[in-house]
Amino acid sequence: MIVVMNKRASAQNIAEVISRVEADGYQAHLSEGDERTIIGLVGESPTPLREDNYQSMLGVEKVMRVTVPYKLASREYHPQPTLVGLNGSKVGENKVLMIAGPCSVESREQIIEIACAMKEAGATALRGGAFKPRSSPYSFQGHGEEGLKWLAEARERSGLPIVTEVMDPGLVEMVCEYADVLQIGARNMQNFTLLHAVGESQHTVLLKRGLANTMEELLMSAEYIMSHGNQRVMLCERGIRTFEKYTRNTFDINAIPVLKARSHLPVIADPSHAVGYSEYVTSVALAAVAAGADGLIVEVHPDPAKALSDGRQTLNYDQFRDMVARVQKVAEAIGRSA
Amino acid sequence: MIVVMNKRASAQNIAEVISRVEADGYQAHLSEGDERTIIGLVGESPTPLREDNYQSMLGVEKVMRVTVPYKLASREYHPQPTLVGLNGSKVGENKVLMIAGPCSVESREQIIEIACAMKEAGATALRGGAFKPRSSPYSFQGHGEEGLKWLAEARERSGLPIVTEVMDPGLVEMVCEYADVLQIGARNMQNFTLLHAVGESQHTVLLKRGLANTMEELLMSAEYIMSHGNQRVMLCERGIRTFEKYTRNTFDINAIPVLKARSHLPVIADPSHAVGYSEYVTSVALAAVAAGADGLIVEVHPDPAKALSDGRQTLNYDQFRDMVARVQKVAEAIGRSA
Amino acid sequence: MIVVMNKRASAQNIAEVISRVEADGYQAHLSEGDERTIIGLVGESPTPLREDNYQSMLGVEKVMRVTVPYKLASREYHPQPTLVGLNGSKVGENKVLMIAGPCSVESREQIIEIACAMKEAGATALRGGAFKPRSSPYSFQGHGEEGLKWLAEARERSGLPIVTEVMDPGLVEMVCEYADVLQIGARNMQNFTLLHAVGESQHTVLLKRGLANTMEELLMSAEYIMSHGNQRVMLCERGIRTFEKYTRNTFDINAIPVLKARSHLPVIADPSHAVGYSEYVTSVALAAVAAGADGLIVEVHPDPAKALSDGRQTLNYDQFRDMVARVQKVAEAIGRSA
Amino acid sequence: MIVVMNKRASAQNIAEVISRVEADGYQAHLSEGDERTIIGLVGESPTPLREDNYQSMLGVEKVMRVTVPYKLASREYHPQPTLVGLNGSKVGENKVLMIAGPCSVESREQIIEIACAMKEAGATALRGGAFKPRSSPYSFQGHGEEGLKWLAEARERSGLPIVTEVMDPGLVEMVCEYADVLQIGARNMQNFTLLHAVGESQHTVLLKRGLANTMEELLMSAEYIMSHGNQRVMLCERGIRTFEKYTRNTFDINAIPVLKARSHLPVIADPSHAVGYSEYVTSVALAAVAAGADGLIVEVHPDPAKALSDGRQTLNYDQFRDMVARVQKVAEAIGRSA
Repeated sequence: MIVVMNKRASAQNIAEVISRVEADGYQAHLSEGDERTIIGLVGESPTPLREDNYQSMLGVEKVMRVTVPYKLASREYHPQPTLVGLNGSKVGENKVLMIAGPCSVESREQIIEIACAMKEAGATALRGGAFKPRSSPYSFQGHGEEGLKWLAEARERSGLPIVTEVMDPGLVEMVCEYADVLQIGARNMQNFTLLHAVGESQHTVLLKRGLANTMEELLMSAEYIMSHGNQRVMLCERGIRTFEKYTRNTFDINAIPVLKARSHLPVIADPSHAVGYSEYVTSVALAAVAAGADGLIVEVHPDPAKALSDGRQTLNYDQFRDMVARVQKVAEAIGRSA
Repeated sequence: MIVVMNKRASAQNIAEVISRVEADGYQAHLSEGDERTIIGLVGESPTPLREDNYQSMLGVEKVMRVTVPYKLASREYHPQPTLVGLNGSKVGENKVLMIAGPCSVESREQIIEIACAMKEAGATALRGGAFKPRSSPYSFQGHGEEGLKWLAEARERSGLPIVTEVMDPGLVEMVCEYADVLQIGARNMQNFTLLHAVGESQHTVLLKRGLANTMEELLMSAEYIMSHGNQRVMLCERGIRTFEKYTRNTFDINAIPVLKARSHLPVIADPSHAVGYSEYVTSVALAAVAAGADGLIVEVHPDPAKALSDGRQTLNYDQFRDMVARVQKVAEAIGRSA
Repeated sequence: MIVVMNKRASAQNIAEVISRVEADGYQAHLSEGDERTIIGLVGESPTPLREDNYQSMLGVEKVMRVTVPYKLASREYHPQPTLVGLNGSKVGENKVLMIAGPCSVESREQIIEIACAMKEAGATALRGGAFKPRSSPYSFQGHGEEGLKWLAEARERSGLPIVTEVMDPGLVEMVCEYADVLQIGARNMQNFTLLHAVGESQHTVLLKRGLANTMEELLMSAEYIMSHGNQRVMLCERGIRTFEKYTRNTFDINAIPVLKARSHLPVIADPSHAVGYSEYVTSVALAAVAAGADGLIVEVHPDPAKALSDGRQTLNYDQFRDMVARVQKVAEAIGRSA
Repeated sequence: MIVVMNKRASAQNIAEVISRVEADGYQAHLSEGDERTIIGLVGESPTPLREDNYQSMLGVEKVMRVTVPYKLASREYHPQPTLVGLNGSKVGENKVLMIAGPCSVESREQIIEIACAMKEAGATALRGGAFKPRSSPYSFQGHGEEGLKWLAEARERSGLPIVTEVMDPGLVEMVCEYADVLQIGARNMQNFTLLHAVGESQHTVLLKRGLANTMEELLMSAEYIMSHGNQRVMLCERGIRTFEKYTRNTFDINAIPVLKARSHLPVIADPSHAVGYSEYVTSVALAAVAAGADGLIVEVHPDPAKALSDGRQTLNYDQFRDMVARVQKVAEAIGRSA
């Protein structure tokens, strides 16, 4: 960390910063310029550095962090990629994971039928929401535990592992009984109570990036989960909020190579939420794979116009099969498979 | 709601939209232009309208909502202002509420001392966090229930009602035992599980706007709480995330008059988080009151440089007293008191 | 266009809107709901519709546009793709255009050497700035007309057509003498005086999207140019400003398929400015091509660490050659060539 | 400036950075931590430091600027406020400047009538656009030089100085003949060619902040003008683009005290464009004055519903008179006058 003193900082101000640095167990290196003094903190200490503490001291102009604040999630401290086991395969290896299914689990018959169709079309996992985060209290909120049971049955029948969202820390244990992967939705990326609970569960987690969160914040949320000893975390880029009105969100394609470089965790792309219109989903999916995504999660429904939620961004079966075929070609072009 | 068909929509597409409108219990009014047909939905029906459902139908170009999606929180349906009782006074009336206190409750002695000082300086409620949402798992997370007990003691001693954050739906009941007002933090504005829980508690709620959320989303979150019969909701503007780097967030001053016009709920301003630097807090507080805010919530600490969190944006006692004096003058200039 | 009256609109208010509609040469279709009246404007008229005019009338709640405000740039009115001729090839056809070169033209020798190297490495056009838009008046501003002369010489020697920025409407004529393609930079996307000037020039234009502009605004700026009879416009996505700090901008990959669907103009991708770090440029370039971009514009320099500007995002020759080879594979995977 | 080397930087990489520092005329101070080396640049040199140059060197992780990049506009180097003379008064002193008038100059009679009405209602300057930046080529573009002549006549008749926009660098000289203050619009804040031209004119400038620009970028644009020896610059906050849909833009109230602290230039607030709806303009105006703005610029028209542009955000005469009265009270409450 670097503390930059302002032009008017007194010798007393500087001495107090140095005292605090030493009290925190670090050494202070001074660079005295003509205009201002810069204090570098070096060394190791069990006390984590808190920028806040220094920022509020007299005479301090700004405090700049040098190292990343996430050690467990960082590739700098863990150069080898983490491979997350899922149903016998390893996410993060050569093969691109393909998670597909409806936005919401609508009925037992529906989810079983879709699961089998997805399996046949080339999917390697099934998605489907039993608990739905909806911005209106008057919208369909999901079938809850009954939906989870149907998902479990769909897994039995199709052989596909289940990815489903959990919203309530009090229900993490219950969702773990049915699901292979716990999804943390974008609106819950900084629901720290929930992150603690899924961390403690030691269950595999798909952590979605929040609508207006930076990659650093995403990695800090992964760090929350990992700080409980749970290394089974997959990051998910699902589009961020921007000023653009022709699409639901903006897929941050830069995030694919940058997250892969900054972290050892697998990175999954959600083109459905990121663009919001089914006719553009395949183009964004191809782009994500070309940029190095380890997997895709897409919304598929036999009749999107009748889906209980997110119909506008949902592929039908034919569109999904077409997407899989094209994804396979692009994956091969960059030396992977799908 | 208005459904705009695209240029290439067939008669069959139009007929299907009309069927769904009627199945939903509304009437369809057609405007047939030279280029496209527009279908207006009129009438009343118990079925809530779901834009999604129409947006995914064949031949539909876009769906536009005409009425607000929040009825309970809307001034259109409830023209009189809601006054929220707090410790004998009514928030939303002429007098500006003044909530002050430290970011975190740090110790029993500290919070009692601050409470008494705030009371004397003119505050009408005490803030202080016992559960802290921190973006890093390595930061101070608050003293938990013990902190709540200290807050309750501070209330005894100072006579100030308590405003404190709740993060875990499982702890709402417990926090209600100690707090007068439950604060929902910005990062939890769309934590729907938590909104349900505070709605059911029937306790007074201070609902903070999320970092990248619109006013409509804020009002939808208020609607979540109110849909459980809890009308005791205060809205809080605390700054939104923008590209600006010289401040922590950007205080949306427009939100003060706009929320007052759109909703009957009281509107509170948090200048501390909104600007992030103590030297600018008073200017933003004055602006909020001039624009019509019903209250302020500000961070105050006897020695901000030693605060366990948010020291950079925290006023000391002298600064707070100065702010109160200046707020009173501006409040009087617009015909209110503080 | 649709005019939604508010709940309290009087019969008089409605009558006045209808009068204005008719005065503008359109017909008014009324839908009278229980709560409010909606007025649809239909028909054709030489008077362009101005939302502003209606929005400010008494009793009007909101005005919603139904048709796109850009007719010349819109695919709806011009379904066939526009192919822009450049040096014998046609941009927008199967082959992906590859524009490469330094951020700034630094010297005569440098630009000639780079041009020949780019040609050999597979580039189909040369970029290089003679007039540089810099946020600081103290930064290098480019070599001006001398730089243009060196570019012309580089074209002679390499056979590559020249893409270079023009900033001053008064210099458009001069830049046209040297350049094959006039680049409008992101900060000038809404410099309407400049758009008029390049429109009148009838020269080929590469129009970059502004940092915080929507696709609709980009297409309106294209419309400005095209309204002077100049159809030779290529759109360029170069990244938008977001909250992300690990990258310089955020490449809006969604914009590739959406612009292709909404407009008939070719779409070029600039991964260099969009991500800002050379190590990520190739991943973003591959993504853009996979998503359907008609071309790439990338910054290349023999020794990026010594470049006079933008060195951090600039590829060296080896990196560029590697990118070209990988782009070719991805292009083939989607049925194109590069 | 501080250069942070990455963990894997070699001694050779460090030596090269030091060489460049010395070649640029500065001294390098090394702080060698356990994990990485930090190099501070100290001293004075005629060579301006270019972050770019260092950022692209091998082994460099990041480069952090310590001093502000704008010296002429900075209060750090110029502690006394700059007072800009205008028609006998001084902007930046105690009295709040009140600029009022229509968005566009519509006719000779209109602008003369408004000028006299504004004068009587308490305005101290007249605004009105003769050249209008419009996002559509089909919208009204202003009356051009004829409009300027009408403005000059309105000045004669009312005694109010004229504020009007200039968009074309080639027309700066002509606009200077008629206008007292040249307005640079938000979309031209980084039109560097135009900034050079108004800098050279030595005329008073009202520089509006761009829709998505930071305060630092605004101050850099002021620096462009001032680098030509023109100190007569007023900064203008007119709202930034955010995700909010209930308002046209978001007024950045924080910018008022922050710009006043960072720069010695006067700061003017434009509540009309910032909020976009006339019913909220006064609240935002009061807030701006309470926060310390040196002036207001508001759109006023005798019949906003008939205005040729921006009618929705325009006050009528009664609303303006009411605003002036309330602004005066708030100004007095903070020890100023209006």
